[in-house]
Amino acid sequence: MVFEPTNYLPYDFANRRHIGPSPAEMADMFAVLGVADLDQLIAQTVPESIRQAEPLEWGKALSERELTRRMREVSSKNQVLTSLIGMGYHGTVTPPAIQRNIFENPAWYTAYTPYQPEISQGRLEALLNYQTMICDLTGLEVANASLLDEATACAEAMTMAQRVAKSKAGAFFVDENCHPQNISVVKTRAEPLGIEVIVGAPDDLDPSAVFGALFQYPGTYGHVRDFTDLIAALHEAKAVAVVSADPMALCLLKEPGAMGADIAVGSTQRFGVPVGYGGPHAAYMACREDYKRSMPGRIVGISIDSHGNRAYRLALQTREQHIRREKATSNVCTAQALLAVMAGFYAVFHGPDGLKAIAQRIHRKTVRLAKGLEAAGFKVEPKAFFDTITVDVGLLQRGVLQAAVREGINLRKVGKTKVGITLDERTRPATIEAVWKAFGLLRSDDDFTPEYRLPDALVRQTSYLQHDVFHMNRAETEMMRYMRRLADRDLALDRAMIPLGSCTMKLNSAAEMMPVSWGEFSLIHPYVPKDQAQGYSELIKDLSDKLCQITGYDAFSMQPNSGAQGEYAGLSTIAAYHKASGQGHRNVCLIPVNAHGTNPATASMVGWKVVPVKCNARGDIDLDDFREKAEKHSDALAACMITYPSTHGVFEAAVKEVCAIVHEHGGQVYIDGANMNAMVGLSRPGDLGGDVSHLNLHKTFCIPHGGGGPGMGPIGVKAHLIPHLPQHPLGGKGSGAVSAAPFGSPSLLPISWAYCLMMGGAGLTQATRVAILNANYIATRLEGAFEVLYRGEEGRVAHECIIDTRPFADSAGVTVEDIAKRLIDCGFHAPTMSWPVGGTLMIEPTESETKAELDRFCDAMLAIRDEIRAIEEGKIDADNNPLKNAPHTMEDLVRDWDRPYSREQGCFPPGAFRVDKYWPPVNRVDNVYGDRHLVCVCPPMSDYADAAE
Amino acid sequence: MVFEPTNYLPYDFANRRHIGPSPAEMADMFAVLGVADLDQLIAQTVPESIRQAEPLEWGKALSERELTRRMREVSSKNQVLTSLIGMGYHGTVTPPAIQRNIFENPAWYTAYTPYQPEISQGRLEALLNYQTMICDLTGLEVANASLLDEATACAEAMTMAQRVAKSKAGAFFVDENCHPQNISVVKTRAEPLGIEVIVGAPDDLDPSAVFGALFQYPGTYGHVRDFTDLIAALHEAKAVAVVSADPMALCLLKEPGAMGADIAVGSTQRFGVPVGYGGPHAAYMACREDYKRSMPGRIVGISIDSHGNRAYRLALQTREQHIRREKATSNVCTAQALLAVMAGFYAVFHGPDGLKAIAQRIHRKTVRLAKGLEAAGFKVEPKAFFDTITVDVGLLQRGVLQAAVREGINLRKVGKTKVGITLDERTRPATIEAVWKAFGLLRSDDDFTPEYRLPDALVRQTSYLQHDVFHMNRAETEMMRYMRRLADRDLALDRAMIPLGSCTMKLNSAAEMMPVSWGEFSLIHPYVPKDQAQGYSELIKDLSDKLCQITGYDAFSMQPNSGAQGEYAGLSTIAAYHKASGQGHRNVCLIPVNAHGTNPATASMVGWKVVPVKCNARGDIDLDDFREKAEKHSDALAACMITYPSTHGVFEAAVKEVCAIVHEHGGQVYIDGANMNAMVGLSRPGDLGGDVSHLNLHKTFCIPHGGGGPGMGPIGVKAHLIPHLPQHPLGGKGSGAVSAAPFGSPSLLPISWAYCLMMGGAGLTQATRVAILNANYIATRLEGAFEVLYRGEEGRVAHECIIDTRPFADSAGVTVEDIAKRLIDCGFHAPTMSWPVGGTLMIEPTESETKAELDRFCDAMLAIRDEIRAIEEGKIDADNNPLKNAPHTMEDLVRDWDRPYSREQGCFPPGAFRVDKYWPPVNRVDNVYGDRHLVCVCPPMSDYADAAE
Repeated sequence: MVFEPTNYLPYDFANRRHIGPSPAEMADMFAVLGVADLDQLIAQTVPESIRQAEPLEWGKALSERELTRRMREVSSKNQVLTSLIGMGYHGTVTPPAIQRNIFENPAWYTAYTPYQPEISQGRLEALLNYQTMICDLTGLEVANASLLDEATACAEAMTMAQRVAKSKAGAFFVDENCHPQNISVVKTRAEPLGIEVIVGAPDDLDPSAVFGALFQYPGTYGHVRDFTDLIAALHEAKAVAVVSADPMALCLLKEPGAMGADIAVGSTQRFGVPVGYGGPHAAYMACREDYKRSMPGRIVGISIDSHGNRAYRLALQTREQHIRREKATSNVCTAQALLAVMAGFYAVFHGPDGLKAIAQRIHRKTVRLAKGLEAAGFKVEPKAFFDTITVDVGLLQRGVLQAAVREGINLRKVGKTKVGITLDERTRPATIEAVWKAFGLLRSDDDFTPEYRLPDALVRQTSYLQHDVFHMNRAETEMMRYMRRLADRDLALDRAMIPLGSCTMKLNSAAEMMPVSWGEFSLIHPYVPKDQAQGYSELIKDLSDKLCQITGYDAFSMQPNSGAQGEYAGLSTIAAYHKASGQGHRNVCLIPVNAHGTNPATASMVGWKVVPVKCNARGDIDLDDFREKAEKHSDALAACMITYPSTHGVFEAAVKEVCAIVHEHGGQVYIDGANMNAMVGLSRPGDLGGDVSHLNLHKTFCIPHGGGGPGMGPIGVKAHLIPHLPQHPLGGKGSGAVSAAPFGSPSLLPISWAYCLMMGGAGLTQATRVAILNANYIATRLEGAFEVLYRGEEGRVAHECIIDTRPFADSAGVTVEDIAKRLIDCGFHAPTMSWPVGGTLMIEPTESETKAELDRFCDAMLAIRDEIRAIEEGKIDADNNPLKNAPHTMEDLVRDWDRPYSREQGCFPPGAFRVDKYWPPVNRVDNVYGDRHLVCVCPPMSDYADAAE
Repeated sequence: MVFEPTNYLPYDFANRRHIGPSPAEMADMFAVLGVADLDQLIAQTVPESIRQAEPLEWGKALSERELTRRMREVSSKNQVLTSLIGMGYHGTVTPPAIQRNIFENPAWYTAYTPYQPEISQGRLEALLNYQTMICDLTGLEVANASLLDEATACAEAMTMAQRVAKSKAGAFFVDENCHPQNISVVKTRAEPLGIEVIVGAPDDLDPSAVFGALFQYPGTYGHVRDFTDLIAALHEAKAVAVVSADPMALCLLKEPGAMGADIAVGSTQRFGVPVGYGGPHAAYMACREDYKRSMPGRIVGISIDSHGNRAYRLALQTREQHIRREKATSNVCTAQALLAVMAGFYAVFHGPDGLKAIAQRIHRKTVRLAKGLEAAGFKVEPKAFFDTITVDVGLLQRGVLQAAVREGINLRKVGKTKVGITLDERTRPATIEAVWKAFGLLRSDDDFTPEYRLPDALVRQTSYLQHDVFHMNRAETEMMRYMRRLADRDLALDRAMIPLGSCTMKLNSAAEMMPVSWGEFSLIHPYVPKDQAQGYSELIKDLSDKLCQITGYDAFSMQPNSGAQGEYAGLSTIAAYHKASGQGHRNVCLIPVNAHGTNPATASMVGWKVVPVKCNARGDIDLDDFREKAEKHSDALAACMITYPSTHGVFEAAVKEVCAIVHEHGGQVYIDGANMNAMVGLSRPGDLGGDVSHLNLHKTFCIPHGGGGPGMGPIGVKAHLIPHLPQHPLGGKGSGAVSAAPFGSPSLLPISWAYCLMMGGAGLTQATRVAILNANYIATRLEGAFEVLYRGEEGRVAHECIIDTRPFADSAGVTVEDIAKRLIDCGFHAPTMSWPVGGTLMIEPTESETKAELDRFCDAMLAIRDEIRAIEEGKIDADNNPLKNAPHTMEDLVRDWDRPYSREQGCFPPGAFRVDKYWPPVNRVDNVYGDRHLVCVCPPMSDYADAAE
């Protein structure tokens, strides 16, 4: 019959959904680039010498529907039991409105870190709410906008304590009642820094021997005690007191600030964020006002914009690792922004009354549970507790634990004879009855007479969450609108390209994201018996295998929770290897200046000495300098850290030689995987000579940036390093644990796995090729107007390009910041500013952007160049022009307009949408003002009223 | 110990999440109203005589989490098999990006019908895409923006054919190959209108005997035939040809337009909308240009705004039932907007190539299936088919059907010896193999050589979906941004109160909405064996029981898909009852002028004569007039239709007397449940004397409006009417079926059930009381500035209030439309305009709005009154003022401003948010222009470019 079959593949996720340019668009782009096809462009860009031998291949790519089916299959192998294991991970109820309107809303999850405050006012406000909540609950003055997890927060607190303490003692005390993973990660961090960790009972603490001490509150076995006297003694000895506190408990209990604590840390997971087999969740850190400049992590502060209106921004950035490089003592970069936003909203949803009621319920349930056990003669410890009790069952430990599992409940194994039980917001009478049943008791939980077992002296005396935002009307209608208003203030990937160099802001597809919400992934405690997490095991194994194939490594550890933590884990692994090889003295790390920004800080964290290596004029590593320094430090050479392709956006042909030099001198090679999106399917760091790399799954592998986190930075290693990978945080073989949970933030892994499955090897390779195409298309369209710094030997850039804006400072008084802010008027997030080279913009479009969007961006950039030219030519005032006044707001339109250019020109430059125009809520934010007048908690509402007038 | 327990109930959904005003806000509102408490207000508002005796009560209200648990429990009782039953319901793959960004996005699902075009441009564009798709696929010139389901679309096509046909024949021919539910609903509709329905083989059609004919294409048993000759013969006889066609088949097959069809109808379910046990899905209707003014349903058209820019709007509204009242011949009102938007986006996602590929795959799979059966000797019918085959298995029918179920597959029982099989987009090789297995064949589906069994003459010769929107880049990034841009153009409940009188725009909470996405609800075919839908049965039974308790009726039918269809089903039930009682001649229906707008049209549909009854000056039914007319028509009195509380927003104390009069004269009482939100828990229509009522589940019971649908209008009846409720569409007892699916749109029912469970009886009652409080608060705040028409005996309004704007026409030349458009500047959707009384605004805030939002609205209204006063006092020009120029757009701000008021005053009147300002994308839309120059499909993109210039 007469019938023309179509060759269109409707379910081809890779080419129809993930990759931006259509085949027709690509053809047009080839013409602009003067290449015949993609093969030719790639041949010009990626040196033959570094190309991988075999194509990536693991069978047919799955369609979205096949993916969902496969994901259901795997997820169903996880068993969702009720986990009463505690240890900092708790059942919680995520309000459905938060789940739908934040967690599942691309406007929130596709946003970037709020470095450009004008387009980030919504999430900055949400994070300020979070910080206010933390300050209130802990009773301390300053809080940051989250850290990776409670254990790393403890470790950060230790190093911070060392920085601020006047005591010169070399040891750090850790309460034996701390959660074991906190102790574990603190020890890992302490070792290379030469800090002695003393684990012991608080009563045995000798304040004069330590520069600081960490207490857990409530303790991991349930104890609640007042640390006031101990803290006073520490202060007497000029040491610093850190309390790791459960924020839910703080709704009822005396706060660390009231005990005199200097620093408080903890996890906000139980504020509405599912456990997710360990993460992601937001850890918090708060401290006394005096110490704020020493605090790691991002802090949201309040400043003003160019019209004097209130504006939020990230404060005190000069503390941060990307500015301090070698001087930084923390490499913290990624936060857990999305999760902190959720936890903050949980507090907004419930308000102080609601939180208090929830905390009281949890406590009363625990009392009922304890009474039932006591009535049957069991010995329940401690006498006073919040939500956790420990029961000595002697020889019956195994029997009770197994009986509990049969009842659908996981309890904690404590020592050889005890069982730990921690209740939470989700505990129902049936749960309590099931626990009793596991102890052999048939009782019904029906006596709801309130009874409390908290020491009178520890009952909280102060109020909290008194700011109006925590007292807003809690109708869902109002909450939903508040969430929408904040989301609308921000510019995220769901509205425009975010061409941030080195950040790889690509599509986070709905099919990849959906499984994250499934209970089979989200409701698993990180320390469940392994047979309950077989789905996770299968997923992690398969994803690891694929990552090995992609990178050329032999094994992966999923433990690191961010890229920076991956670097740290990688260097720790190398250090452990050297030590095991009798080379423990090796402590020099070569880092070329074109390597990633966090690298030097990370090397410092493992106690290494950073030796910078120069770059040549092309931006490549200066081989002579490299060789010279390697030779000079030959005996002490621990490692080099290079970024590939370099942060200059070029595939350096000499990379293999660099690696060989390091190996020759007994060092190991760390290749930073931040730019892996330029390599997947084309080149493998393991083949180039790398011994370790981390991958940013939140860059290359589609985990969304969440407005500044979560992230995942697993590390891949060569076989000889496998024995030295980070161990399980509760103990095992290898180097020290770097995260609280064995697999970092595993509930994010379905996203990356889905990406690999739906793309297939060929799709991933094509994504890399198109990422390179897109970057070169921008470089070509912009050339002539802007100088593109750094190109490869055949004149091509890799997956990003750097354009130089320094000449305009002289010619027109225009700074890179002016251009970045003007791009906001055009409806874009600015590219990465002044990194890796001051006064430049680094542009990374990724493969997910269409040609139309690239053109919109290039049109905007070229129009900006014209505006600069108008200044250069004296056609427009050098101080009063669209660039200097950018970004323009709706308020500018309403006000009298006394500018030498029209409203039209000011607000609708090329690139800007007309009807769908994005309006920043504030004009240019004043950074200096904000740091001088630091305010990091919600101001009283009366201030808002003033500002509105 | 010293511990203050809090009395706060953190999980109290009713009072903390659903009901807007907080206890503190309510206290302030009581003060404004001059009442001591809510009891006093309700006592003043709801006459004692109509109050219900017993409070609503069905146990403790569930928390959100308990609800989810209960919902999982019930949903797990539905068995998700692969249904190859066909009959117009097909497996489909909803693109995850559409699911997340539209179906699960409150910006889309909480919007109202786009009657106010300036704030609805996003969904109007989406619906225009849908209409364009329908026109293209059917080959006809005009399409509407969806009807309720395919069967009712067939019935609407019949009555439309009767309106437009020049033939005066009294019969309508229906192809015996139509889906049985289509035949069933057509028959139901035909009967009261005196239309004879002739069901037969197309070859037996006598064109001269009919005014029209309906063919199914492909036929329900799989046949595909060319109707061109038959249609020509019909045209010869001046009769009208209707083709009900599967849009997926039309991607390959000759289109109805090319056959000469006058009207095409069908279901777009398989374009990405899950079957959901029968609904909701969008049915389509298209027709020739000549007939457009006779087409039922909403039509989106293109017009211009006051600056001459392109703007979308609902066209030809003068055809509609709410304007024509007694003259209307269709009562169609609610559409399936959200589902039409999804289907339209499915076409945008796949484009013509993708749709064609999907259709080809479906067909080729069906060929493979058939070949396998034939190879084993089975007789497969018909020879040519698209996706459906029928196999005669003789005595083995039951065995094959049961074997299929064991394989996880539902097949269709056809007659006593045949089995029907319909394949779809979800069919995989494993599915085909499982079907073979059910026939006893062990084969593998591995021969993928393309083979087609479509008649050459029926292969489609024309292209479709040639508009640019169907050729946009199909990267998910681009699609996601397009969906976001459209959503942002609209004002929905997620941004502001929508105080539409009679529409009850209340919270659609996330917890209520989430289960709708679950496969256990969404993947069930409406005609599965009953034991596979036990979850649905349990849910429907429990919801019905609760609705009975709420209304005082004895049974409910869930079949009607909208309020208007509920009215129709209710009157049909009454008619069937009269007929069964030997009173079939009764055909007069009394309808007071304060009854709901669709009532007269509905009465016409069952062939009744409408006798209007006057209202007195208070707006109440004129009892004398009512009595007089009832007496006059005593012998013929079929029913009266009243709305309670009346559309004047008042509880009429005389309602029981009205009902008694009707009963006295042998009639039945229909009480329209549109205003049930003012009654739940306080008063029951069944107690007042009602025999039937419909409930708008999409008003009172939280199903979202979806931008103009879906809806659900189940009817409750007294015991004597139960035998006469609508029957199952595939046959059974009772009056005729009114919908294609036995329970209408059951996948929406979890929403209403969740609402009832989370509110509890007390919560529902409180919701009613607060709805009344909110309305009275507005009435009180606005009094003095505006006259509130119609109040009860103690000066209170019910759940809505009507304010009179007619005086301003004389005093200031200001119309109700000016005020409505000015409210857009203030960030509000206007209240209902000019209904039920011309020149008024009917305001219904619902219980979900907070006092703050009510105040924002009142402030806006009072400021508007001040603006009117300024005109009255000559302080501002009568033709050039903020009211006449409303709504103001961003374009107005950019343009030169030559108005006698400031930009500030124009764009930021009281009520308007500052940073979060909602900007309408167009200025005031010209209705007349659009109807004069009717364009109902996407214009070529070149036109857009012109407009942009």
